[in-house]
Amino acid sequence: MAADHPRTATLLMHCPDQPGVVAAVTRFLAGHGANIVDLDQHVDRADGVFFMRVRWELEGFTLDAGAFSQAFQTTIADPFQAVWQLHDNARPLRMALFVSKMSHCLYDLLSRWQSGEWRVEIPLIISNHDTLRPVAEQFGIPFHCFPISADNRADQEAAEVELLTRHEVDLVVLARYMQIVGPTLIDAFPQRIINIHHSFLPAFAGARPYHAAHARGVKIIGATSHYVTLDLDAGPIIEQDVTRITHRDSVKALVRKGQDLEKLVLARGIWAHLQRQTLVYQNRTIVFS
Amino acid sequence: MAADHPRTATLLMHCPDQPGVVAAVTRFLAGHGANIVDLDQHVDRADGVFFMRVRWELEGFTLDAGAFSQAFQTTIADPFQAVWQLHDNARPLRMALFVSKMSHCLYDLLSRWQSGEWRVEIPLIISNHDTLRPVAEQFGIPFHCFPISADNRADQEAAEVELLTRHEVDLVVLARYMQIVGPTLIDAFPQRIINIHHSFLPAFAGARPYHAAHARGVKIIGATSHYVTLDLDAGPIIEQDVTRITHRDSVKALVRKGQDLEKLVLARGIWAHLQRQTLVYQNRTIVFS
Amino acid sequence: MAADHPRTATLLMHCPDQPGVVAAVTRFLAGHGANIVDLDQHVDRADGVFFMRVRWELEGFTLDAGAFSQAFQTTIADPFQAVWQLHDNARPLRMALFVSKMSHCLYDLLSRWQSGEWRVEIPLIISNHDTLRPVAEQFGIPFHCFPISADNRADQEAAEVELLTRHEVDLVVLARYMQIVGPTLIDAFPQRIINIHHSFLPAFAGARPYHAAHARGVKIIGATSHYVTLDLDAGPIIEQDVTRITHRDSVKALVRKGQDLEKLVLARGIWAHLQRQTLVYQNRTIVFS
Amino acid sequence: MAADHPRTATLLMHCPDQPGVVAAVTRFLAGHGANIVDLDQHVDRADGVFFMRVRWELEGFTLDAGAFSQAFQTTIADPFQAVWQLHDNARPLRMALFVSKMSHCLYDLLSRWQSGEWRVEIPLIISNHDTLRPVAEQFGIPFHCFPISADNRADQEAAEVELLTRHEVDLVVLARYMQIVGPTLIDAFPQRIINIHHSFLPAFAGARPYHAAHARGVKIIGATSHYVTLDLDAGPIIEQDVTRITHRDSVKALVRKGQDLEKLVLARGIWAHLQRQTLVYQNRTIVFS
Repeated sequence: MAADHPRTATLLMHCPDQPGVVAAVTRFLAGHGANIVDLDQHVDRADGVFFMRVRWELEGFTLDAGAFSQAFQTTIADPFQAVWQLHDNARPLRMALFVSKMSHCLYDLLSRWQSGEWRVEIPLIISNHDTLRPVAEQFGIPFHCFPISADNRADQEAAEVELLTRHEVDLVVLARYMQIVGPTLIDAFPQRIINIHHSFLPAFAGARPYHAAHARGVKIIGATSHYVTLDLDAGPIIEQDVTRITHRDSVKALVRKGQDLEKLVLARGIWAHLQRQTLVYQNRTIVFS
Repeated sequence: MAADHPRTATLLMHCPDQPGVVAAVTRFLAGHGANIVDLDQHVDRADGVFFMRVRWELEGFTLDAGAFSQAFQTTIADPFQAVWQLHDNARPLRMALFVSKMSHCLYDLLSRWQSGEWRVEIPLIISNHDTLRPVAEQFGIPFHCFPISADNRADQEAAEVELLTRHEVDLVVLARYMQIVGPTLIDAFPQRIINIHHSFLPAFAGARPYHAAHARGVKIIGATSHYVTLDLDAGPIIEQDVTRITHRDSVKALVRKGQDLEKLVLARGIWAHLQRQTLVYQNRTIVFS
Repeated sequence: MAADHPRTATLLMHCPDQPGVVAAVTRFLAGHGANIVDLDQHVDRADGVFFMRVRWELEGFTLDAGAFSQAFQTTIADPFQAVWQLHDNARPLRMALFVSKMSHCLYDLLSRWQSGEWRVEIPLIISNHDTLRPVAEQFGIPFHCFPISADNRADQEAAEVELLTRHEVDLVVLARYMQIVGPTLIDAFPQRIINIHHSFLPAFAGARPYHAAHARGVKIIGATSHYVTLDLDAGPIIEQDVTRITHRDSVKALVRKGQDLEKLVLARGIWAHLQRQTLVYQNRTIVFS
Repeated sequence: MAADHPRTATLLMHCPDQPGVVAAVTRFLAGHGANIVDLDQHVDRADGVFFMRVRWELEGFTLDAGAFSQAFQTTIADPFQAVWQLHDNARPLRMALFVSKMSHCLYDLLSRWQSGEWRVEIPLIISNHDTLRPVAEQFGIPFHCFPISADNRADQEAAEVELLTRHEVDLVVLARYMQIVGPTLIDAFPQRIINIHHSFLPAFAGARPYHAAHARGVKIIGATSHYVTLDLDAGPIIEQDVTRITHRDSVKALVRKGQDLEKLVLARGIWAHLQRQTLVYQNRTIVFS
């Protein structure tokens, strides 16, 4: 992601499965001077859907965004009934972090940003508590507190959406934000809100998953990053990972071991989104390689 | 487990947590000439229960099973309110296998037995179908077919129990046995029936877990070996493991990858039982190291 | 792999990286009526090499093997300087197993074959000892014993090659074959001999890796399947996996845990080869997805 | 580790294996009013050595450190030829961090400290470069720069040892400190310097392990935390972990994935030390559970 990298664009698309799609798309791109650097496709035979991600160098490519849109729609999207997105990878995404009282994911994400590991902008942090304001200040990020209750959720979320929109936020990350997110926020950022849930979903959805895991006596615990939908803890999964536990591990030990998983699984989920590797279809996430 | 190993005995016990248990037990054993080769203890602070596994060499030990029982009960079990089991490790366990139509776990277990990897006896294989009779014959193990329906389950299980008892079976292994096991069989072998379930429990309990995992879009699948209780797929878990999948994996691919997990997780669960490393308490399994 | 699957062909190719390769190949295939079912490509930027695997349905494809060869060579391979292989997936591969005295990998592979999990033919088993003849007989596979010493290696391998060639063997699998393989055999089956090494290569190459791992005090052990080259344990790696151990594990315990890894890692390596997913370049293996 | 936890002490010991050790130690502790909360023992049969870790509540225990030392030496250590350490767990350890230019491990450790996840004190950070001074300042920890060359190593290390001693440092952590550590520092902190090496040791010891892993074409990379000895990258291993890679991963991608491993494996190694779970014997580390 260094500044001297060649500028690239990424196309994500899906359409009904049919012969000739790859040939048509690659011929289209080559015909306008694209040097393809990544191409990954997938066919879901059960659903009859074709998925593709292509990334190419912009140097020598003869279409700008507007011209691409018109030409691609006519030449490819219309005849193949394709749904598509185009991303210019030169522009860093703008990511807002939502937190509550636990700091481990927040520290992890801020460190990746501050060290330059991730090329991303973090214009603001939002919380329903004031607890983590000092961490935000330590890293120099504006911190906004929106206390939420069932009564004021819609209003507070409307204010949050206004703030997020004003800051041109592309992606919302719920970094152990312990509040239900309602339709106001979700509708404003469809497939652009990533949550970390502290269990191996669909096991132990809902509250207090470490307590539930301990009570059930499982031998492995997990964490799951997923896009947020109106259905709690049921959105499209981006990434999961697990760690082994034993009968010796108290709930407190599960929390400690689990927090390391949460940091990692959330970071990997965000990374996949930043790289434009994800495409949601029917509540499942294609993660291109 | 070679024949020239020193003969050992294993004691498994639990009692209310209280000072002095380890001291009392180890003094008792040392006082009768035991050379302890393994000792592992665990205290569940939430429940206030103490668990211990001790293994010692029988050479030089001055108590036989009867004398041990009387002395241990008086000296330790009564004052400490302990529940205990004593096992003479010289005697190989006798294990019955229950199968249906899928052979992967059956082959794996028979290979471990035939190659001498496990010191265990397999006096018989029971199935609700005739499909795998040739595999049993190939390995020279008697095969008994008991077709089961909801109507005849209790009667067939009674016949199975009679057969298992006659063969002095210690442990029943459900090696992808696709039939509900009822109280007749379960009551006859409490905490001595091990099942392999083809998911990461409690996720995807019940039928067709690979289909359910595919539909949910998880990124990891698992398998679980557990003791069988009347509550379907909810018995005490012995061992679990997982493997990573991607959006490319069809249900068929999940089945293929999952079968390797099933073999491994079932084998590890059985191994822990054979080594007398497991102790069930309150629907959870302590697996001593 | 069921018989009613549509017949497919797989093309593996690599060439100097240059614009337009994917477009040219997919246009070539589409132009002759191919319905592409899988396409995976990879560009090694450091070496400037382009790799591709394409699989398509043969129904409706207008070129037979001979016509394909001529047309593809002229249209694609010559202008792009591509090296390529074409495989008709209808023909099951013929796999010979080499073993010594340990049976765990042998049982595992024979079970996958006999149960129909793998669509492969096993015309013969070769060993430098007579120990495992009964296992071969139990599964009904011809067993040939070639005792090997440094003195007679070249002669014995020449006899083995003659036998393998007569049986039209495509792939040789060293399933814990504890003998050095010499140039006679390797030259006859370039990139078609798969070995399982019982360590996480390059750690603990050579003899007695479990002893070495125990002495070093590692906390994880592994296994590696790789193509065999003249450089011992240094051939292109296909697959690796690991398992966690502790200070409690004796060398004997490492062997026991490691054997489960060996079975799994060898099976996955063979599976990738059978699916024509592997392409060797510069001592590394591309494993297409 | 909350302040309201009962105060405990931890004893680590080893001695020649012999009957009656556990009985003698537990009787000794019970005789002075100890309530044992953890006991883990291990016998290395190959070397004939017995290892034990015991932790007990200090409330009601009748010996202070001085009295314990005298009584334990006479009653246990002398007759059993035991080597032992006693730790009062009430005192937080004091940990110094050594860094160079990479910040990922530093951020991770400082976050665990600042959030209170770890009960540890970090009196200072030492570096051979000035690069990470701003991170130290951001977290309010004194930062000392000691540029090192082959010529001045012994002198600079002597100055570092003086500084560490003055700050009563218990544990030195090399958090991606890219300098060879010499005998001056190592002799001052025997088995109290923990390093993170960015490979799965013993594979890829020395410089540039990610480049070496890429060149070898491994399918898994790892990280190793270990106590530092004079033998480079060959000290007793505390913890290792791995992550899967593919042919798609460039050296840059290995570095990115590996850094997450490094953070985790270093943190786990330090945690085990802080919990007094580690005991080094013959270049291997016992990690008690």
